[in-house]
Amino acid sequence: MAKGSDAKGLTPRAQDYPQWYQDVIREADLAEAAKVVKGCMVIKPYGYAIWEKIQRELDSQFKNTGHQNAYFPLLVPQSFITKEAEHVEGFAPELAVVTHAGGKELEEPYVVRPTSETIIGHFFAKWISSHRDLPMLVNQWANVMRWELHTRLFLRTTEFLWQEGHTAHSTHEEGQQEVERMLGVYSDFSRDFMAMPVISGIKTETEKFAGALESWCIEALMQDGKALQAGTSHDLGQNFGKAFDVKFQNVEGDLDYVWQTSWGVSTRLVGGLVMTHSDDDGLVLPPRLAPVHAVIVPIYKNDEQRVLVMEAAERIQQAMQDVDLSGPRSRFRDFLHVEIDDREMRPGAKYYYWERRGVPMRIELGPRDLAKGQVCVKMRTGGDGKKEFLPETDFLAGVRQRLEDYQQMLLDAALQRQADQTVVLDTWEEFLETFGGDDSKFAWCHWDGTKETEAEIKAATKVTIRCVPLPGHGPAPEPGKCIKSGRPSAQRVLMAKAY
Amino acid sequence: MAKGSDAKGLTPRAQDYPQWYQDVIREADLAEAAKVVKGCMVIKPYGYAIWEKIQRELDSQFKNTGHQNAYFPLLVPQSFITKEAEHVEGFAPELAVVTHAGGKELEEPYVVRPTSETIIGHFFAKWISSHRDLPMLVNQWANVMRWELHTRLFLRTTEFLWQEGHTAHSTHEEGQQEVERMLGVYSDFSRDFMAMPVISGIKTETEKFAGALESWCIEALMQDGKALQAGTSHDLGQNFGKAFDVKFQNVEGDLDYVWQTSWGVSTRLVGGLVMTHSDDDGLVLPPRLAPVHAVIVPIYKNDEQRVLVMEAAERIQQAMQDVDLSGPRSRFRDFLHVEIDDREMRPGAKYYYWERRGVPMRIELGPRDLAKGQVCVKMRTGGDGKKEFLPETDFLAGVRQRLEDYQQMLLDAALQRQADQTVVLDTWEEFLETFGGDDSKFAWCHWDGTKETEAEIKAATKVTIRCVPLPGHGPAPEPGKCIKSGRPSAQRVLMAKAY
Repeated sequence: MAKGSDAKGLTPRAQDYPQWYQDVIREADLAEAAKVVKGCMVIKPYGYAIWEKIQRELDSQFKNTGHQNAYFPLLVPQSFITKEAEHVEGFAPELAVVTHAGGKELEEPYVVRPTSETIIGHFFAKWISSHRDLPMLVNQWANVMRWELHTRLFLRTTEFLWQEGHTAHSTHEEGQQEVERMLGVYSDFSRDFMAMPVISGIKTETEKFAGALESWCIEALMQDGKALQAGTSHDLGQNFGKAFDVKFQNVEGDLDYVWQTSWGVSTRLVGGLVMTHSDDDGLVLPPRLAPVHAVIVPIYKNDEQRVLVMEAAERIQQAMQDVDLSGPRSRFRDFLHVEIDDREMRPGAKYYYWERRGVPMRIELGPRDLAKGQVCVKMRTGGDGKKEFLPETDFLAGVRQRLEDYQQMLLDAALQRQADQTVVLDTWEEFLETFGGDDSKFAWCHWDGTKETEAEIKAATKVTIRCVPLPGHGPAPEPGKCIKSGRPSAQRVLMAKAY
Repeated sequence: MAKGSDAKGLTPRAQDYPQWYQDVIREADLAEAAKVVKGCMVIKPYGYAIWEKIQRELDSQFKNTGHQNAYFPLLVPQSFITKEAEHVEGFAPELAVVTHAGGKELEEPYVVRPTSETIIGHFFAKWISSHRDLPMLVNQWANVMRWELHTRLFLRTTEFLWQEGHTAHSTHEEGQQEVERMLGVYSDFSRDFMAMPVISGIKTETEKFAGALESWCIEALMQDGKALQAGTSHDLGQNFGKAFDVKFQNVEGDLDYVWQTSWGVSTRLVGGLVMTHSDDDGLVLPPRLAPVHAVIVPIYKNDEQRVLVMEAAERIQQAMQDVDLSGPRSRFRDFLHVEIDDREMRPGAKYYYWERRGVPMRIELGPRDLAKGQVCVKMRTGGDGKKEFLPETDFLAGVRQRLEDYQQMLLDAALQRQADQTVVLDTWEEFLETFGGDDSKFAWCHWDGTKETEAEIKAATKVTIRCVPLPGHGPAPEPGKCIKSGRPSAQRVLMAKAY
């Protein structure tokens, strides 16, 4: 199969990585550019099914950590955006504006929410009056819109789907704990479900969310060495509390502004998933987020064989779907989804079809194997691409473990790639060499902590500071000299080109 | 409790039904008017939790009937709306228009989708070329916007959440079967989950969806005798296929336009739920859609008692959450959600709090009952409001059945109300009497089938034809004379004032 793949429309990574990314998405039928709506995409059923799996797991984790879902208006009065000075500066250039409605020009235009701190701040002010109303922990699953110039399927689209958590607390410390807790949820989810290792850290002043005191983030390494900001968790301090007059009476009876946080991940995660695991044969999916876990391809030459093979296929499908996935170590949701592909096509074309869609496991079922009571199993990647022949009962008894192992194998491979593509740099020469042309890696470098140096590095190389790592998420802090200015630095930070 | 309710902010239904509706929503904390965004609402956590229960069940039914979720852009090029003549006429007055984005005026404005037939038609044209691509069965969960003048929480808001199914078929017959199938899903869901009986029928030309050949609908009777259109399923014929050039090669090799359907229900269902079951004490919820099934109120006078009572409360909570809800007759999802209310408040205030939120079951737990090994149970409504005292083991063994019975009781009561408020009218005098002032009922009347008579009836009384009933959903067809014009009529239709 792999041999034919170039001819069938997949550009190899080594040849043109951005084109490969688009090809993978097209061939797996995940999404397509809307074209008639600038920078938007249509998320097609297979792509949406992955997003639904992401949603379901995260939603359950948000609820387990005490959050409740709610829904706030899509439109935000334009004046709201201007109430927090940094916020308006950051978002004004990207706003889509509704000026007319119901056949009339509006007195005050509305903007389509680029994020909901402002409108939610307005309602928090109505709902919160005492420390007894706190903490207030809400989340919403919604669409938002940011008018971006350069868009890319899933990674950056003018409209995208996301969740945005918004919380209010009575102390800064409690807000900070929330910021850390939710970043932990994101980071665990990335590792345990997406099999995508991330570096957790804090954004620089330049890169932080417009209106936040601090933005915490998780950064993932894509196969081309670029970084993907995969999730953020913001300490908003009292900035929005002051802008929207969200006051509460504290335990001592004094009035104070609430301390707020916000945190979000988006359909961008699907792009991250694609770029973490996929190969030159197309999409590769970790079983915990795969809409289809296995496909059974029946192989037969005549009607008599067909009856026999289809009977066995349905028996195996049923047995696989009955596999008990519960238990403390299992993180599969629901049950295994197993497809039988009985279309009128060559088996080879079917193999190719399901490979491009990243289905973890393929079972080939023909009369000869059936007669021997065995099944032929091939995993989408790993294991040197070998087919395995197993007694049906052994296969069924081991199917859950096989998928758990596959999930682990993908994580291990991603961790290995991360290790291979992470460097520690000390000189500007090394830096220029590492980031020459379109190249990128995860580079731990000293930085003097100034905006000016950060801007110079970016202007010279397109490299940005992805984050100042949290303790344990990067090299142990040791003093050094800034890679660009040579001035003193207290610790290394993560640098890379980014999506 | 009931006695105090007027004083505490619930207007009795008999006094002011619309105000009662608003009061129920406010006191149960379901939603509130956004005010700063015209005609929009904020769906608060408890209201959103009901919507999530509705979503989860319907989503599973859509998938069971072969549909896949996808996501299409929020914005639609303005020119798209004008491509189907009736469609633009129906929706143009209600559109919200984005004229500026990214700091510039757009060359072509976008409208915020009021519904997605047009943008989805555009993509169907790209995706469908052969009968092998059909049927195409997609659904999306999304927000839509219709700039309405008169809005009401849940029932009619400028932005609302909904699902919209969109399907394409190779024959009209297959499309018609889909229209009927999905109306059946809605009607079964209304009865089996919402405990809300509905009449299924077909809209008149005047009332049908702008751009459809036929609109099928379910109509529910609210307690004030008004009708609520609770869901619609449209036979779009080839109208959008022709407008968006969605052609396919049929089995014979000829090119033809696809036959399309669309169908939707919205957050309006939450309003229907409120108005079907609630009473002068506040919200009443059917257990299958209740976010909280039972609340345990511990009662104690000192710390020693508290320890004892809380221990028992947690034991009972755990036992209730462990109740096996599976099995063919059970339609509960997940598990029972049981709250223990240990706030520092009088028990009476707690009873009142949970009553207003419509929690089906209350368990009072005090040291005296504990000593006897019994629990005190009170259901939110029915059973003459009596408290029952049951041995704990009997209570636990019967808890599932108790909730199933309660669900059935709510449906029976709604069916009884529907029967009580449904009349068969034959003269215009009876009609005027029935629909005098703000009064309404479900009235089966003959109609001559003309738009003119329909308009005259509406102008005179605000009564509209809700639907021409499907076979078995209204009186058996028999010829008669139109209630207004006296001209011949083939069958009775359902008339009522409507939300």
